[in-house]
Amino acid sequence: MTLTLADVRAAHTRIKDRIHRTPVMTSATLDAKAGARLFFKCENLQKIGAFKARGATNAVALLSEEEARRGVVTHSSGNHAAALARAAKLRGIPAYIVMPSNSPQAKFASVRRYGAEIIECEPTIASRESTAKSVAERTGATFIHPYNDARVIAGQGTAALELLEDVPDLTDILCPVGGGGLLSGVAVTAKSVNPEIRVFGVEPAGADDAARSLAAGRIMPSISPNTIADGLRSALGELTMEEIQRHVDGIVTVSESEIVNAMRTIWEVLKIIVEPSGAVGYGPLVDGQLDLAGRRVGIILTGGNLDLDALPWMKPGE
Amino acid sequence: MTLTLADVRAAHTRIKDRIHRTPVMTSATLDAKAGARLFFKCENLQKIGAFKARGATNAVALLSEEEARRGVVTHSSGNHAAALARAAKLRGIPAYIVMPSNSPQAKFASVRRYGAEIIECEPTIASRESTAKSVAERTGATFIHPYNDARVIAGQGTAALELLEDVPDLTDILCPVGGGGLLSGVAVTAKSVNPEIRVFGVEPAGADDAARSLAAGRIMPSISPNTIADGLRSALGELTMEEIQRHVDGIVTVSESEIVNAMRTIWEVLKIIVEPSGAVGYGPLVDGQLDLAGRRVGIILTGGNLDLDALPWMKPGE
Repeated sequence: MTLTLADVRAAHTRIKDRIHRTPVMTSATLDAKAGARLFFKCENLQKIGAFKARGATNAVALLSEEEARRGVVTHSSGNHAAALARAAKLRGIPAYIVMPSNSPQAKFASVRRYGAEIIECEPTIASRESTAKSVAERTGATFIHPYNDARVIAGQGTAALELLEDVPDLTDILCPVGGGGLLSGVAVTAKSVNPEIRVFGVEPAGADDAARSLAAGRIMPSISPNTIADGLRSALGELTMEEIQRHVDGIVTVSESEIVNAMRTIWEVLKIIVEPSGAVGYGPLVDGQLDLAGRRVGIILTGGNLDLDALPWMKPGE
Repeated sequence: MTLTLADVRAAHTRIKDRIHRTPVMTSATLDAKAGARLFFKCENLQKIGAFKARGATNAVALLSEEEARRGVVTHSSGNHAAALARAAKLRGIPAYIVMPSNSPQAKFASVRRYGAEIIECEPTIASRESTAKSVAERTGATFIHPYNDARVIAGQGTAALELLEDVPDLTDILCPVGGGGLLSGVAVTAKSVNPEIRVFGVEPAGADDAARSLAAGRIMPSISPNTIADGLRSALGELTMEEIQRHVDGIVTVSESEIVNAMRTIWEVLKIIVEPSGAVGYGPLVDGQLDLAGRRVGIILTGGNLDLDALPWMKPGE
C-alpha cells in the first residue's frame, strides 16, 4: 500500500462533520524560549480527547453496509478504544472492545459511555489478540487495528491537513511516534503538500523502538518499554514502518524529564491539559535538545486523557 | 458614569490587536449533563492567562501622551498586576506594581517578566493603598484600579461582545464576580445587545459580599473572605455596584466543593486549565444547583493561573 494525499483529503471530507477542527495555539513566551515560531495543533481538544477520533471515524465510515451491520472489534486499553466506540455509536453499529482486565476503571468508563460491549481478557498481548480474534469470528465484526490500517492512517493524516491549511508555511513538524499511525499520516500529508517540510518523529528514549527500527531497516519490537508516555509503548506496524521509512526525516528521542517538563510547560503556558504522550512532540524543544532557531515548527499535541490524581509532579522525589 | 455598548465597542477596536480572540468551547458531555447548551468563553487562554488583559490594555491605550509618559501604577498580587505590566510594556511606558511582600514568587516573576518595577509593601490593604499613593505622587504615574475604573470595565466587557458575536442567541450568561469589573462590563454589553438575556453573577458562598450588597442596596465589605477562589475575595466598587444593580438579574453563590468540582470537571472534559476563580461560573451547573434546562448558556471561564504543585485534590482529606 502507498498512502496518498488524495486518501487523506477524502478522509477529511468523510469525517470533518464528526470531529472537531482543533485549534492551533501559539505563545510568544514559548517562541522566545525556542527562538522559533511554534504552532501547536491541539488534538488534546479533539473528540474523546485525542487524535484517535480521526482514524477510527474514517475506518468506520469506510465499512460497507453489510460489514457495518456486523460491527467492529479492536483490542485497546487506550484512546483508540474510546475512539472506535464513539465512531461505531455515531454510525449506529455494534462495537466490541477487548480490554485487559487490569485496565483502569476510567478507561472502562470512557468506552462504556459510548455503548460499546467490553470483553475483558488477560493482560497479555497474546490474550488480547486471541480474544479479539474469537470475538471477530463469533460476531463477524471487522477488526480495526489502532494504527496498522490504511484507513486509520489516512484519518490521522487529516490533523496535518488542517494544520497546513492554517499555517501553510511551516518548515518542520514534530510528531510523537508509538505505533506510528499518526506519524505516517502526518508525514505523507506534509511531504505531499510541500516536500521541503521536515517531519520528525519523537519518542521516549525508554521506548525507542522506532529509532531502532529505522536504524536497522526492519521493525524492531518494543521490549520492556519504560516510560511515563503510556500511549507510545507500541512497536511500528508494517504499514506504518513503510510510510515512515519513505517520508520521515528522522526520529528524535527524549528523556523522561524532557517529557514531564514538556507536559508541565504546556500546562503552565498554554493552559491546556496534555497527557505525557501528548506532550512528547514538544520534548526536544523544552530544554533545547533540538535547535530549530528561526524556523516555523508545527508540534502535534496528541491527547489529553490522564488521571488527575496521579500527576508526575505529585510523586515526591521524581 | 453610565457605561454604554458604544464604550465597549470602542474598547474592542482599541485592544483587539493586542489580545487573543479567545475560543468558545462546547462539549456534548457537559451539555447532556446540564440538559442545556453550554458555551464556554475561554479567557483562561487570554494573554497573561486571564481576562484582565482586556481592561488593562484599554485603560493604558486611553492615556494621553503626557499621562502615558509618566507611566501607570497599581496595587495587586494577581492577574491585574501582570495585565497592567504587559499593557505598559506594549505601549513602551513605565509600570509600577505595588505587591505585598508575601506574594508568591510566581506572581513576582510574572510581573517582572514584563519589565515592570515592583514596589513591595506590607501585606495589608492600608499599606497597599498608601504605597501606591506615594508611588503615584513621586512618579506622576496614573493609578489604574483593578476594577473600579470605567476604562477597565469597558475593556472587560469586550469578552461578552466576542461571545455574543460567536453565539448570538444566548439566553443566559454566568459570570464570576469578585470586584465586579468583568460582571459589570459583561452585563452592560449583553443587556444592550439583547435585553432578554439573563445575566447572573456567581461568587463563592465564602465571599458573598456581592449577594449581600445587592440585597442591602449598598456596598457591603468583604469581611474575612474564605474561599479557594482567591481572585474573588474583593468587595464591589462604586462603579461596578451601580452597573450590577442596573443590569444583573441575580447573584448565585456556590460552595467550595462546587468550585473544586467545577474546576476539575472543566480540566477533565474540556482539557483546559482553569484556576478556582476561573471555574466559578460553571459552579451552579456542576451539581445541578441551577436548573437551566433547554437554555443556551454562556459561561465565562476567567483565568488559568495557579500553582500546579498545590491543586485542591492534592490535599489529603479535602
